[in-house]
Amino acid sequence: MRNVALTVSYDGTHFAGFQRQTRDRSVQGVLEEALGRLTGETPDGLRLVAAGRTDAGVHASGMVVNFHTAKGHPDDTWVRALNALLPDDVAVQAAREVDMAFHSRFSAIARSYRYQVSTRRTPDPLRRFWYHWEPRPMPEAARMIEAFEGLVGTHDFAAFGSTGSTPRSTVVTVSEARCQVEEGAMTFSLTAKSFLYHMVRRLVGAALQVGQGRLGADVFMRLVELPAESTWVPPTAPACGLTFVRAQYPPPWAEIGRPF
Amino acid sequence: MRNVALTVSYDGTHFAGFQRQTRDRSVQGVLEEALGRLTGETPDGLRLVAAGRTDAGVHASGMVVNFHTAKGHPDDTWVRALNALLPDDVAVQAAREVDMAFHSRFSAIARSYRYQVSTRRTPDPLRRFWYHWEPRPMPEAARMIEAFEGLVGTHDFAAFGSTGSTPRSTVVTVSEARCQVEEGAMTFSLTAKSFLYHMVRRLVGAALQVGQGRLGADVFMRLVELPAESTWVPPTAPACGLTFVRAQYPPPWAEIGRPF
Repeated sequence: MRNVALTVSYDGTHFAGFQRQTRDRSVQGVLEEALGRLTGETPDGLRLVAAGRTDAGVHASGMVVNFHTAKGHPDDTWVRALNALLPDDVAVQAAREVDMAFHSRFSAIARSYRYQVSTRRTPDPLRRFWYHWEPRPMPEAARMIEAFEGLVGTHDFAAFGSTGSTPRSTVVTVSEARCQVEEGAMTFSLTAKSFLYHMVRRLVGAALQVGQGRLGADVFMRLVELPAESTWVPPTAPACGLTFVRAQYPPPWAEIGRPF
Repeated sequence: MRNVALTVSYDGTHFAGFQRQTRDRSVQGVLEEALGRLTGETPDGLRLVAAGRTDAGVHASGMVVNFHTAKGHPDDTWVRALNALLPDDVAVQAAREVDMAFHSRFSAIARSYRYQVSTRRTPDPLRRFWYHWEPRPMPEAARMIEAFEGLVGTHDFAAFGSTGSTPRSTVVTVSEARCQVEEGAMTFSLTAKSFLYHMVRRLVGAALQVGQGRLGADVFMRLVELPAESTWVPPTAPACGLTFVRAQYPPPWAEIGRPF
């Protein structure tokens, strides 16, 4: 049996999420179908796993998945053959045969997300799939940036996300938190070993309220420091603005998921 | 009668072009329908005119149009009311009531286009609507940039475009020609008072051949200098990579079409 890692990009607009579902179109389902046509193997045999299971409408530029197969192909052949079978909104960027110990989810040491906001007064048709449109003024943008970038470190994010099944703890170490503001747009970037369910979208939703002056920067930080005292449910920013950017792995898998 | 100028963005993917057509969906048709609902006036009365008539699949971030109407609204009301009526792939960015002498097409002193190319080895689902995917190697990228940027000046572009009905001359003065290369992408920018039909897409198509080493940079430049000697038809780069960026007007209309 072989173990193959893929770096995959997808436009989440027309997917009900990454994870396979009985009826709705999923990224996993589309990948398994293409792999099935190529290898003759079933989803149960392929055991396709992803570094992150994105929600409906969430995109990925560098999602890492892996699967088991009896078939052997040169890495480049996996890329070309799968791209020939995949629909326009999913593409394989890289393939690498790895040892059986590699697991795209459990081996990952970091995951990075990007959240894009269009802050123009008017809607932008050229951004409508991959940006959240938030035209309200941002008088407190400086405080928002400071609060968001202050997320670097180890905090209890219980106020910003549920654990789902795993991880069991709501304590997350954020290794990167950036908010870049340019004319008409904002980009939030977050990196951590793993994230709670809805955590990125809730942190961005709350940060935008700080920027708009509807939530104090002090309250935002207190929610991170003292989540147990909070009964406040942060607003969840829409899925369309969120992109899974990359997953990182330790040696000997450090090349997997590298930006291409 | 009043004269109103609009700056309009659109995603050209699902349009058969700007110009109104009997059956197919056009940007002009969609704008006239929204204006008709708002003003009660007919296309014949509105006399909607655009700075440029983009082809099927070509996008615009800052197209300027103007129309005549008996209705008076504050500029911001035109923007909000039209955006409430327009489909997701067209939006009004700005409106301004102008004197009757303003004509979005004939008053324009410059038009700018951008052409985006994805040069990755693999297709990118997040770029599929607004980039042309050209994965072939570009060993002669430096020559391509030099040749493309050498287009600034007055040349006879007969080899690169037809005149259609107007303008009658194939001599065009290019005021800006830039080719920016970054990791995985290229952006070509061109500004001129007006362009020949298909000129931008043919110049980019030929420039990409220069980059790939399939067309000499010297031949590219000779085609501009001695078009009459040429029987060569340049390749036309696909519509999806092209965006009409802005139109410029002289005073007192200099604010119209400014990037927003």
